[in-house]
Formats: sequence, C-alpha cells, structure tokens
Amino acid sequence: MSKSILLKALVVVTFAFSGFANAGDEKVRWRLAETWGPNFPVFGDASKNMARLVKEMSDGRFIIRIDSANKHKSALGIFDFVKAGQYQMGHSASYYWKGKDFNTLFFTTLPFGMTTPEQYAWFYHGGGMELMKDVYDKYGVMSFPGGNTGNQMGGWFRKEINSLEDLNGLKMRIPGFAGEVLAKLGAKPTNIASGELYTALERNTIDALEWVGPSLDLRMGFHKIAPFYYTGWHEPATELQFMVNQKAYDKLPKDLQVILKTAMKLAAYDMYTQSTHESGKNLATIQNDYPNVKIRSFPKPVMQAIKKANDDLLAEFAAKDPKTKEILDSIHKYQKQVRGWTNFSDRAYLDNFDSK
Amino acid sequence: MSKSILLKALVVVTFAFSGFANAGDEKVRWRLAETWGPNFPVFGDASKNMARLVKEMSDGRFIIRIDSANKHKSALGIFDFVKAGQYQMGHSASYYWKGKDFNTLFFTTLPFGMTTPEQYAWFYHGGGMELMKDVYDKYGVMSFPGGNTGNQMGGWFRKEINSLEDLNGLKMRIPGFAGEVLAKLGAKPTNIASGELYTALERNTIDALEWVGPSLDLRMGFHKIAPFYYTGWHEPATELQFMVNQKAYDKLPKDLQVILKTAMKLAAYDMYTQSTHESGKNLATIQNDYPNVKIRSFPKPVMQAIKKANDDLLAEFAAKDPKTKEILDSIHKYQKQVRGWTNFSDRAYLDNFDSK
Repeated sequence: MSKSILLKALVVVTFAFSGFANAGDEKVRWRLAETWGPNFPVFGDASKNMARLVKEMSDGRFIIRIDSANKHKSALGIFDFVKAGQYQMGHSASYYWKGKDFNTLFFTTLPFGMTTPEQYAWFYHGGGMELMKDVYDKYGVMSFPGGNTGNQMGGWFRKEINSLEDLNGLKMRIPGFAGEVLAKLGAKPTNIASGELYTALERNTIDALEWVGPSLDLRMGFHKIAPFYYTGWHEPATELQFMVNQKAYDKLPKDLQVILKTAMKLAAYDMYTQSTHESGKNLATIQNDYPNVKIRSFPKPVMQAIKKANDDLLAEFAAKDPKTKEILDSIHKYQKQVRGWTNFSDRAYLDNFDSK
Repeated sequence: MSKSILLKALVVVTFAFSGFANAGDEKVRWRLAETWGPNFPVFGDASKNMARLVKEMSDGRFIIRIDSANKHKSALGIFDFVKAGQYQMGHSASYYWKGKDFNTLFFTTLPFGMTTPEQYAWFYHGGGMELMKDVYDKYGVMSFPGGNTGNQMGGWFRKEINSLEDLNGLKMRIPGFAGEVLAKLGAKPTNIASGELYTALERNTIDALEWVGPSLDLRMGFHKIAPFYYTGWHEPATELQFMVNQKAYDKLPKDLQVILKTAMKLAAYDMYTQSTHESGKNLATIQNDYPNVKIRSFPKPVMQAIKKANDDLLAEFAAKDPKTKEILDSIHKYQKQVRGWTNFSDRAYLDNFDSK
C-alpha cells in the first residue's frame, strides 16, 4: 500500500467519524418546566407523552427532562423561564400570562367561545396560529397548543341557582376572566389554592367553585359536599400550551425541529382524546355512586345575563387595543362560520339520535 | 507507519463506513396505494401529510411514494395490495373490506354510532385499537385510523321527506350498510360511480344521494339540483384507514417505526381538523350563494323507524358471529358511557350558548 493511499484512508476515517458523531453521539438535552405538580393526571401525561415521542423518534438523540412545580417552585414562572432561556421549554396555559401581555388571554379558551374541534380548526386553518405568533414573537417565545380538556363544567354549587338574584353575593372560586364576568353580576369571585378548596367549600367559606370537569373533579371529592353540578359556559375548550425558546429551537437540526413540532401537536390532540375518555368514565362513576348529584344548566335568563356581561367586557377590551380587536374579530368571525357546521352536524345528529 | 497500524486504520474505516451508511445512506423506500384519485381534497391530503412528516422527521431516510387510483387502477384493491406486500402501505377505509371479513365493517363508523371525539376515545382508551388488531392480525396487515370526515350529512333530496311513506320506493345512492338499513324501510339503495352522480340526480335516475358533507359536496354541485339537504344519522364519524404490511413494518428500525406511527396518528387527527374547517367554510358558501337550499332533519317518526331498522340489523349480525358480538358490545357499552359526557358538555354548552 502506497503512502498516498494510506493518507486517503486517514482522510476518510476523519470524515466518517465526524459524520458518525453528528448522527449518533451528540445528544441534545433540553429541560421543560411545567405548571403542574409531579404525576398530575392528564395535563402531566401530555408533557410526558411529548418527551417520550421526541426521544423515541430521534433514536435517543434528543432528550427532554421534565421539571414539575415541586422542582422549580414556580408554577406561574414558566413564561419567564422560557423567555430567559433558563428552560428551553414550558408546559402551561396561555391565559396565565394576561398580566404580562393581555393578548395572551385569547389562546386558551373564551367564555361562549369555540368548542374544541372548532378551536383547533381556527388555530390551524383560521389564522389562530399566526395571531398567537404575533403576540409571542416579541418575547422570543414560540407558543403551541399543548392539550385540550374539552368543555369544562360550570362548577359545583351547594345551592341551586334559580335566578340572577342567586348570583348576587355568591362567593365562588372562579379565577381569571370568567370571574370578572360573574363579578359584573354581583358575584364575589375568589381564588383559593387547590389543596384548600374542599375544606373551603365544606365550611361555607365559598358557596361554589369551578375546577375542570369529571376528568379531574372526581379525585377532588366535591360531589360529596355540593349536590349541584352545572353545565359549562366559561371554558368550552381549554387548550394548554407548549412554549419553546426561539433561540434554542433555531439551533436544532431540521429533523429534530420537525420531530419536536410533531410530538407537541400529537400530544395535544391526544390529551383531548384522553380527556374525553376520562370525563365519560368519571361522570358515570359520579352518577352511579352519588345519585344525589344533580346536573343542571343555569336558567335561560341567568345564561343570557352572563352572556351579555361577557360580550360587554370583550367589547371594552377590544376598544383599548387594536391587536386585541384584531384577535377578537378573527375569533368571532371564525366561530360564527364554523358554528353553522357544528349545529347542522354533531348537534343535529345528537338530536336525531335521541328522537323520541 | 507500521503494517499493524495500517491494518487498524482499515478496520476503523470499515467500521466507520458501515455506521455512517446505517445513519445516512441506506434509505427505506416504501410505496402506498390509496383508494382516491390524485389530488383528491382532504382525504388525499392525509396521506400526503403523513408521507411528508415521515420524510422530514427521518431526515430523508424513509421515503413513502404515494400511488393514487389512476396509477394502480384498483381503488378497492388496497387491502389485497398490502396483504400481499405488493404495497407496504395503503390509505382507504375499513368498511370497504366487509366482503372479505365482515368484522372490518365496525372500524370506520356506524349509523347512530359515536361522534368523532367519542370514537377516538374508544379507539385509544376503550379497546377499539385492540379489537381492530384482532380482526386484521390474521391477514398480516396492521390497521390504524387514517383521518376523520366528521359527521356526514344525510344527503341531498329532490323532494322533502315528510313521512315513512316518502322513503318507500325512494331511489337513493347510499352504498353499504346504511343502504341495507334504508332497504328495510322500502327504499331502493343503489351505488353509482361518482362521476355519474350529478347527471343521475338531475335526470331523476335517482331521487336522492348521500356523499360526504359540505367539505366535499360543494364541488359536486348537488345543491344546484336538489334543494333539501338532510342532517346525518348514518356516518357520524367516518374514519379513514392507514394499512401497513406487518412484515415490512417489522423490518424497520425502532425509530422509524415510531416515526411512522406518529405521522399516521397526527395526519388522521389533522384531517378531522381540516374537515371541520372545510365543512364550515363550504356550508357558509352554500347558504350564502344558494339561499333556496333548505337544511332539514328527518321527522321524528322517520328517524325512529330508521333507528329501529338499524338496531334490528346489528342484532342479526351479532347473533351470527361471536367476534361481531364482542365488537358491537364494546362499541355500545363505550358509546353509552361517553355519550353521557357529550350530552352534559358540548351539547349542553351549545344549548347554553343559544339560550333565548
């Protein structure tokens, strides 16, 4: 073998090793901070499923470690963690950041807003993702759907609501925008830490509370002390959120970028499917084991008043900021179009099914 | 340089090349046969989206070529193609194979069956995937959800249906199981090639037809010649199907297996979102541009009679085959549980929204 062939062989060795290292040895290691505690059902499954898909699809080249709230000690610090790059990813909900940027409020759910399939259609075909990007871009944060709870129940009430007067002075745990709506009608919305909710309701510190729906309410035990379970109006399609630090994302090779986006999108849809399952199963358990629980809808005049208070509040918001107006116009226009289909498809079908 | 070092260098070259080849050079090339023609809207997007995700997530190591019906010339030959390994994959619908194995009928949709979110919950949490595997395993074929149309409309009718008598002798293009149900009530179901449907309806060769829903009906033009558009009962959640040849799948490295499954599952969910969007958009177009189109639901006595005919037919099927009974029992039990939730969530919410 000549010296020149030997040199060629060594060049090939060097080239081949560098290629091999890129393909298999240099692992990307990221950290995700989530709002939830460890082993939180359904919500926590979404982040775990996403990280597992990323690991398996990348053949172990891309590892995402999940830190729950017990670890990072800041359930509502997720936005800042991701913005600063302290964590490359977060799992939370967009409406938690309305104090930082009011327009983040509109990418989770809205009272009297879209149902889950309608809202996914708005995100992916109706301009929702583009509007969300407009809002988050300036923080160097990318925001994506992170899992849907489906329709949330209106809450657990110790006394029946028969008229608008019954809302007056009602002490209810209902945080955020929906609480502001009820406050317009004289209710006293409060927020209470989840660990203290049961006792507060039992001791009449509050008269009512909303949590999620049967998927997560069953384990809280509210059905044992509040016999009225009201149907929903305030969170028809609560979508959680994956956040990604833009600079960290830009450094990923193209295939890992697509793997990450695909895993987030699938984990989000899958959480909606899981929520549907858990809600059906747990509602059946509540109805079988606690036959005294009465499922009610608010009387029509109450519902109309709540809806009007909500419309008035949204109009106030829209008047303050052109970007808010742009987002609300998009939502309202899209909702009107897609609701026509929902009414003639699933809604008419459920009526046809129950023809009596 | 000694001879022994030269030998070591060559060993390294060989090792490195084999590693490098595995990581980047040996492409997996598959072919997928689909029932639809080229550029078929929505359905064809699902297979294309799946193949694009596989290619991008695998960094080009896994390429799936799609042959539409114009290429392979056998729209309903997909099952046999995949079973024989002539194609590694197929994109079609499970209920097309009921002539080969009757129990494939139950993995697409059923008259008076589950809605789309309910059915996904059954597939992934209620035992549906396991039952589908039982049915397909013996053919060496894997079957997966392949995209959902959402609720399908009951069809376009030239005359209004006011009573059961109006179904008697009605010539309607409605193939498959739903046609058998209507035949029990005296209708004359027929099947007609899609290219001839418009003319058949215009010339009164048929009195009515069902196709899909606004997402695909608009381009067919039926609204120009049949003024009554009926809401749905027979296909509440039509799920297309990806099929994979089991032996071909088993030869894939683990990461490409997960990439393939993830891409199929996401493309299926995404088709439901796309269907929701297209249906909303196209229904609005029909209503705006053709105000004479009247959307109707069958009168209650008609709906009740159709439902009874359907129940009787399913009971006949279940009596013939224990596996059929097992599948139908699973569907009915799950549907009853999850429907409780649907009624108190999205359905009650839509009523609350429209409180007047």
